[in-house]
Amino acid sequence: MKNFNPVRGTYDYAPADAKVRETVRRIILNCYTENGYNLIDTPILENLEYLNSSDGGDNLRLMFKTIKRGDKLDLTKPNLTENDIVEEGLRYDLTVPLARFYANNRDKLPSPFKAIQIGQAFRAERPQKGRNRQFTQCDIDIFGDNTINAELDLLSTCIETLTRIGFNNLVVKINDRAILNSIILFAGFKKEDISTVSVTLDKIDKISLTGVTMELIEKGFDTANINKLIEILDDVILNGIEATKKYGVEETVIERVKYLIDNLNTLTLNKFDIKFDISIVRGQGYYTGTVYEIYTEGFAGAIVGGGRYDNMIEKITGISAPAVGCSIGFEPVTMLVKERELEYGDKTNLVLLYDPDDDILTVYKVKSELKKKYNVSIFARPKNMKNFYDKVIEVASNVTSVKDYLQGKEIKNLK
Amino acid sequence: MKNFNPVRGTYDYAPADAKVRETVRRIILNCYTENGYNLIDTPILENLEYLNSSDGGDNLRLMFKTIKRGDKLDLTKPNLTENDIVEEGLRYDLTVPLARFYANNRDKLPSPFKAIQIGQAFRAERPQKGRNRQFTQCDIDIFGDNTINAELDLLSTCIETLTRIGFNNLVVKINDRAILNSIILFAGFKKEDISTVSVTLDKIDKISLTGVTMELIEKGFDTANINKLIEILDDVILNGIEATKKYGVEETVIERVKYLIDNLNTLTLNKFDIKFDISIVRGQGYYTGTVYEIYTEGFAGAIVGGGRYDNMIEKITGISAPAVGCSIGFEPVTMLVKERELEYGDKTNLVLLYDPDDDILTVYKVKSELKKKYNVSIFARPKNMKNFYDKVIEVASNVTSVKDYLQGKEIKNLK
Repeated sequence: MKNFNPVRGTYDYAPADAKVRETVRRIILNCYTENGYNLIDTPILENLEYLNSSDGGDNLRLMFKTIKRGDKLDLTKPNLTENDIVEEGLRYDLTVPLARFYANNRDKLPSPFKAIQIGQAFRAERPQKGRNRQFTQCDIDIFGDNTINAELDLLSTCIETLTRIGFNNLVVKINDRAILNSIILFAGFKKEDISTVSVTLDKIDKISLTGVTMELIEKGFDTANINKLIEILDDVILNGIEATKKYGVEETVIERVKYLIDNLNTLTLNKFDIKFDISIVRGQGYYTGTVYEIYTEGFAGAIVGGGRYDNMIEKITGISAPAVGCSIGFEPVTMLVKERELEYGDKTNLVLLYDPDDDILTVYKVKSELKKKYNVSIFARPKNMKNFYDKVIEVASNVTSVKDYLQGKEIKNLK
Repeated sequence: MKNFNPVRGTYDYAPADAKVRETVRRIILNCYTENGYNLIDTPILENLEYLNSSDGGDNLRLMFKTIKRGDKLDLTKPNLTENDIVEEGLRYDLTVPLARFYANNRDKLPSPFKAIQIGQAFRAERPQKGRNRQFTQCDIDIFGDNTINAELDLLSTCIETLTRIGFNNLVVKINDRAILNSIILFAGFKKEDISTVSVTLDKIDKISLTGVTMELIEKGFDTANINKLIEILDDVILNGIEATKKYGVEETVIERVKYLIDNLNTLTLNKFDIKFDISIVRGQGYYTGTVYEIYTEGFAGAIVGGGRYDNMIEKITGISAPAVGCSIGFEPVTMLVKERELEYGDKTNLVLLYDPDDDILTVYKVKSELKKKYNVSIFARPKNMKNFYDKVIEVASNVTSVKDYLQGKEIKNLK
């Protein structure tokens, strides 16, 4: 007996799951569209040279690569290297293809350009809960707007989208790389250490300030600088963004973060917990300004993440454009929707049974009438009704037969 | 200057194209769902051993394969073969993953199981118009129903879907492999030649009976058999399905094709040209019964294709189940929708301009009002309005400003 499981780290979605995923996908895409973003689509296969030139860090190591085909694949070449045998890569995110798309089409795109992408990306991560090797991303990005109004646009759109999906308890945490950078420098670290120190600060939530201290000591940094940094963080955590002024953070940076938080609070009628949080760093090296995450009950990680990456487009395409984006985590969101059993008022599914003596055109006539209210699947009446009911419940919640319907009998509810 | 084109044979879709594709995708999925089919989803990455065991013919040669990662990739091994370095494959269609899904989940699925799949598949074909290396398929299949009512269900659903997309002129051509097989045997060919002869018959439309004769001669078949076959085909083309009786075709086969055609004609109110056509063969070796294609104006190839493949599931999974399916060609259909400029009454896009002196909360208040009628994208007023209008027309057809709106001025239409 063969094994018919999907490839390790990937998943099949049976009807109930696939329906939830499709419904959530539509809500997200509709809400993004209504807020003036435009869907684009790029291929899953991407130029390998281009992918390798991106700022992908660890993702480059986790990349799926396709082999050359036909005569191009020469396995007899001496000292064969991976570069000799690979042809394309599977994209590891949607931001790198978006930068390529923008570079290729910018002449005909308006500026700012507000893009939606909903598509699949691939990373050969060690399979674990919430780490699929094939996963869906739902991104919105704004290219060509260097003002904080772009962040306000993105985050208000994300919050509206999550609300429409059915999430009422949201915690929005906002930080700015410029604040982190200033504080780290103020504590005495060197410019070139900012990135390493930031990686540790990203874990404050998990390991607390004591853990941060220990990790920075392990990394071999000067104890005086570490102590100073912890002291600053203590103050900022206690006294909020205003406290950062004392540590060399520019007034304009503090103002833009406050502007974002205040306006988001007003636009969302103060229904959510929207706040400055010094522990938000985001892993990617390419962020240059604001960074933010959104959390909800029932999932430890962020369900939305994003930030400003003003230099990245230029770095990988040579074309300069300020950029800022955010991404709804489709995998955790759909998992939560299933767990919470959120419903969206879709038509329910009905099975219409017919018998050998039913005229097929009558079957279709009844089907056509029932379709006004239900999704209607016609089935020949099975021999084993018990077994049938046990299984058909996977795909339909109502059942009737042509004869029963014509006699005006009530539709049987299976749930 | 780098090249930012997508990978050869794949395409980027800018907003106008992506919107058409998304709209058509929804119509197809909605119509499939309303007719009682259930969406499932399977991964793009597929087990290579499994793909290789499928009846894929030429598609196996065109398959994209990923290389092994990390320590698993040993390029120093002597006499290295492709098998030593590959790990997964990208699926070349959706039918092979569906068979795997069915084998893996059949215990909890109802029988018959009516599946929808809308997803991407990959083939490294020589790039040409209509032959994308990454392409979308929109399939419905019924597993577990060996009656002709399954074909009626599939084809009536496809026709309803195409009508809803906006196609009014459809030609539905139906044939049955059992008819082809009988005729070929009756003409004197051997059982093992059926497949080769069928490949040539598939081209009747393109090369006419004269071309068929020449190709069969080239293939080295006996002239007497060829002449006999052409004589039979002449008769069948002239006199229709009833004529096939004379050539050993079983009455039940003729009856099932007629049943399908008659009922489809009635269900679709005789609006379309639905007919038996002996030249419909379909390439895949796995078809066992009915085969069919749907054509429309403006595209030479079929926009829908499918048939019955009762042995395929068993052959590749060991689990026996009658199966029949059909697939709407998403790439030609979306191309035709664009060419015909079909419209679907979506909300139109509007750009809302704001000035530096506009209060941001007022901007959002106006946006919120306009959203009742439009998809609203907010933009800071650009310096160069001429350049702005030239480009914004790519993504929006209306524009107004916060001040103009508040003063009750008319919304500017860009088209």
